[in-house]
Parts: sequence; structure tokens; C-alpha cells
Amino acid sequence: MTTPSAFYLDCDTGIDDALALAYLLASPLASVVGIGTVSGNVSAAVGARNTLDLLELAGHAHIPVAVGAHHPLAGSFGGGAPWVHGENGIGEVSLAPAAASLAGESAAEMLVRLARTHAGSLKVLAIGPLTNIAEALRLEPALPSLVDSVTVMGGAALAPGNITPVAEANIWHDPEAAALVLAADWDVTLVPLDVTMASVLEEPHQQQLLASSGAVPRALGEMLGYYFRFYEGIYGRPCSAMHDPLAAALAVGAVRPALAPVVRAAVDTTSGPGRGQTVCDMRGLYAGYPPVAGARCRVVLSLEEDFAPHLVDTLLTLGEDAAVLDSTTAALASAGALTR
Amino acid sequence: MTTPSAFYLDCDTGIDDALALAYLLASPLASVVGIGTVSGNVSAAVGARNTLDLLELAGHAHIPVAVGAHHPLAGSFGGGAPWVHGENGIGEVSLAPAAASLAGESAAEMLVRLARTHAGSLKVLAIGPLTNIAEALRLEPALPSLVDSVTVMGGAALAPGNITPVAEANIWHDPEAAALVLAADWDVTLVPLDVTMASVLEEPHQQQLLASSGAVPRALGEMLGYYFRFYEGIYGRPCSAMHDPLAAALAVGAVRPALAPVVRAAVDTTSGPGRGQTVCDMRGLYAGYPPVAGARCRVVLSLEEDFAPHLVDTLLTLGEDAAVLDSTTAALASAGALTR
Repeated sequence: MTTPSAFYLDCDTGIDDALALAYLLASPLASVVGIGTVSGNVSAAVGARNTLDLLELAGHAHIPVAVGAHHPLAGSFGGGAPWVHGENGIGEVSLAPAAASLAGESAAEMLVRLARTHAGSLKVLAIGPLTNIAEALRLEPALPSLVDSVTVMGGAALAPGNITPVAEANIWHDPEAAALVLAADWDVTLVPLDVTMASVLEEPHQQQLLASSGAVPRALGEMLGYYFRFYEGIYGRPCSAMHDPLAAALAVGAVRPALAPVVRAAVDTTSGPGRGQTVCDMRGLYAGYPPVAGARCRVVLSLEEDFAPHLVDTLLTLGEDAAVLDSTTAALASAGALTR
Repeated sequence: MTTPSAFYLDCDTGIDDALALAYLLASPLASVVGIGTVSGNVSAAVGARNTLDLLELAGHAHIPVAVGAHHPLAGSFGGGAPWVHGENGIGEVSLAPAAASLAGESAAEMLVRLARTHAGSLKVLAIGPLTNIAEALRLEPALPSLVDSVTVMGGAALAPGNITPVAEANIWHDPEAAALVLAADWDVTLVPLDVTMASVLEEPHQQQLLASSGAVPRALGEMLGYYFRFYEGIYGRPCSAMHDPLAAALAVGAVRPALAPVVRAAVDTTSGPGRGQTVCDMRGLYAGYPPVAGARCRVVLSLEEDFAPHLVDTLLTLGEDAAVLDSTTAALASAGALTR
């Protein structure tokens, strides 16, 4: 049996963040050792509450959650995307408020601490704006040598953006942070809109989740109803892109890219029409992407197989067991045994 | 029989400009009434000499050629691309120096004059940087109401750039001019790298041109040898993209787009990594590009059929007849009958 890898998750929970979190909890390849939140889909504080509530529902209330940056490195938080994720960030689905409390450290501090604790083996998965990761690089310049891998859901290489014609939301919300993260001394796997927009969950997948006996899959299925309504305006049918869970599956290694060239990449931090664009050098396209000296950004463009069935199957394992564990955890938490 | 349309060609001749010019001369759908040159592949002055020499070789020395802008609107001309087009701009092929002289007006002045003369019917085909077109808009703000159509070879919508990761050469060499042209009160057909890089001339096509009895197809075949060597580094085999002649064929209507959404487009004029990018809003991709209110840029993404055979067949019509006409023209020109 494979030993699960230690994961630090940085998120802005968020419907697809909720799916990614649940996927990581369900995956036998991952052990989430800490979660930081950042403002993006919702504020860092709301994202942290959603994360705590989801963890408790999934019977994982022991995983520490730290609130991260409210504002991006430059400018200020713009209020999130309620038209995509709902006012509460999770599609207006009501979860029981978790008893567990927030960690006493910031997300960046948590990342640095975990990177030192799990020196050389921590996998970093960032599915929100990259403010916390940039701050962690500032707190600990040796961070790149301490972590095993960095996977980022964000950007668009050859695909259109989703906030501007060229900018994807996670990068758009903090281009300055993204620029620092992509320029740091580590290899980054970028999971951009090119591949996430092609990884679509359809209504039958949602029905499978709603029909589960597990509280978590059912809650995710309900959230997807909200998400589907937004994406109907994009795809012309009720369905949704699977941005964050796909990044999670690639980070754990359960899903393999078919095409993922390693290229030079920078982030546009001007105030021009390209602001927030991940400027990936895809000029090797016509020769099958020959190796590029000094390139450190692995851009996932396509997958070996359709992601949706694997995602749904994995989420459905969060069934009865989790619900039982959940009751136990809730009982323990309300008894004060799990406060941190 | 169709009446040929009056064309003003703006070019930076250039190997693929030479092919586009020859294509227009050969096409029964086009009548070139004036040509302006601009610095790009070569300087505006060298481009004008190449154009005159090609016109004389093709027996069309009567078409007036005006030298246009040497420098872009901002900054200065960078010296062209000899590694792509050769030191002389036409792949080191030597053409007999034309006897005809240059027009006494600038390219922008010529465009404005022709637009007035052919009011409502002039088709503008720009296959170099857009400096002259921008200057013509300044000279005659009513220009958009005077011309029939504007077709521009330039930019990259979803494809990589060819000068930077996101910028195509014609736009890169004068982003400020391109921004003015795309913002003017007219519809523009953009023929970007997305479609030109997929329209490839192969060695058998070159052999067909070299085997022609016409001096023009043979000269073009020789130029392609140089061009192929550059593009071998891009495609991994000797061949070449057909940027400019494809724009010509689309402008005359001999080739039809399979997919050409009309979208909003702007040009990045910052000094950031996106400088020179045509920021086309392709976000309608996932719903089949529904109509967008106020959009005026028709971005050609694909063709109904392969362009290369049509191009070669058309160029091969510049055979014996042209060579005969050429001798006549040259004799007249050397007798001083054609000086302007």
C-alpha cells in the first residue's frame, strides 16, 4: 500500500474548493496536514468557516485550518464571486457550524511550519489566489528547498481567461503574488483553464452524488446545483468545470497528464489589458514542445482520460463511514475534546 | 465574370508579402490600385524596392508604390528580421532592379487618396505593421466610412505569438498603431497566427513553383527555400506558414473561414510581458461563440479547406503570359514610357 503524501492545501472555499478538499480527504494518496485560506471566491475568513464546517461534516475536524491573507499583495479584496459560488461560497448550502476553532497562526506561518516539519516531503496544493504562498516565500526564503512539489490551479496558457479575456480568477485576484510564486526557485505544476474547462461534471454525475448515503457527497451534489446554473451561461448546458478537484487529483498523482510541456512562464502585473495573465511560452507547440533550458513551469494541457468518473467515484467513498465518524467527531467536539 | 475589387495593399516585403502580392496580381478577384510599404520584415524603403522589382517581374510596373512609415508610432524601427526573410528581405533572391520609380506621396496619403477615389469600394489589405493605416486614420478621420473592408494579417487569438510568447510580429512592431486601427469605427478581419500557422506550404508545393515556366513563380519558389530554412526550426521540417498570402486570399474572398467569431479585441500597449498582444475576447469558445454586442473584430480561426493548393494553383497562373508582358513592360520602362 502506498503511504499517503502530506499535503498543505491553500484554498478559498468555494464550491470547487469544497470538491477538491473532499477529494483529498477521500484519496488514499493524500494526508492533509494543514489548510490555509485566502480571499478569492469568498473572503479568507468565510473560506475558513466553510472549510471547518466541511471538515467536521467529513469527520476530519482534527485538520488545522488557518486564516490567511484577506487582501492581495497589491490593492484590496474585491468581495468574491457570489454569482458563481453563492453568497456563502458554497452554493447557499447550509452546513452545521463546526465546533472546531481556527489555528492560532496565519496560513503563511502554517505553510512554513509544515514545510519544516515535513522537510522535503510536503506537497503544496494552491487552489486560490497565491497571496499566502508568496507570503510564505517571504517568511522563509528557503521554502522551495523544503517542499516536495507545488501544484497551482490557475492561469490560462492557450485558453481564454475567465475574468478578463486572458486572466483566470486565481491569478487575476493577486497577480503580484502569482508572479513571485512562478519566479521562485522551484518547479511549479500549473493546472490552467486549458485543462480544467475541458474537465466537466455533468448532471448524471451530480445525481450520483445526491443519491449517496454520505452527508458529504450529498452536500457537494447540492452545491453543484448552484455551480451548474452559473456554468450554464458558459457552456450552454447545466454542468461545471472541475478546476480545483482536478488540480488535487494531479497533485496526488491519481490522474496523469497527456500533454504537459515545461515552459517559461511569467505573470502580467501591469495595469494593461493583460493584467493577471499567465504568459506561458507555448511557442514550442508546432514542434511538439521540445525541452526549454531553464523552464520550470509544467503546464497541464490535457489528460490521459476523462476526469469526472474518477472524481465522482472517489467522492462517493465518503459514504457511511464518514457519516458515522462525523457523528463521533461532532460529539467529541461538542464535548470540548477537539478544541485547539 | 466577377468584376475585380480595387485593393490597397500595405506591406513590408518580405517573402510572404511577395507571395501575397503575387497572389493578388494573379487573382481574378483583385485589382491592386496602389501599394504602400512600412518597416517590418525590412525597412519601408527596402520593402518598396522589393515591391517595385516584383511588380516589374510580374508585368505590373504600372501599379504605384509609395514608401510609408520608417518608424513605428512609438520608438524606432528595429532593423527587420533578416534571419527569417534574408538580408534583402526576399530570401537573397536577386531580382532585376525595376525601372519604375516611387510615387511622390506617402503610403498613408496614397491610402487616403485611393479611399476617396474608390469611395465605398476600396478593400484595404494590411500585411505589415499598421503604422501607415493608423497615419491614414489621422489624415482622414472619415476613412472608415470610405473603405469597403479592412483585412489585417496579424496577432494571435488563442495561438502563441511569434516574437514573444503572446505577440505576433506585425502587431509587435507597432502596437500603438494596431490599437488605433482596432479601435477605429470599422469592422476589421484579423487573420492571426491561429490560422496562418496551420496553413503550411510544403516542399512539393515549392517544387511546383520552381518548375514553372513563369519568372515570378520561379522567383517565389527560390525565396521559399530561405523561408523554409527558418521555419524548419519552428515546425521541425522544411516548410513554411503562409501568413500574408492567406490574408490576401481571405480578403479577396477566394478562401472562406470555417470558424471566424466576431469578438471584442484590443492591443496591449503596455511595456509588460503582454506588449503587442492582440487581446481578443474568446470567452465565447465554450458556447460556440454567441454574438457579442459591439464586437467588430472578425478573428479567422480556421478554414473550410486547405489553403496551399489554391495558393500554388493561383501563383502558377503567373506563367508565360506574365513573362511576355514583363519583357514588354521592361522595354517600355527602359524607354522612359512608364516613369511616374
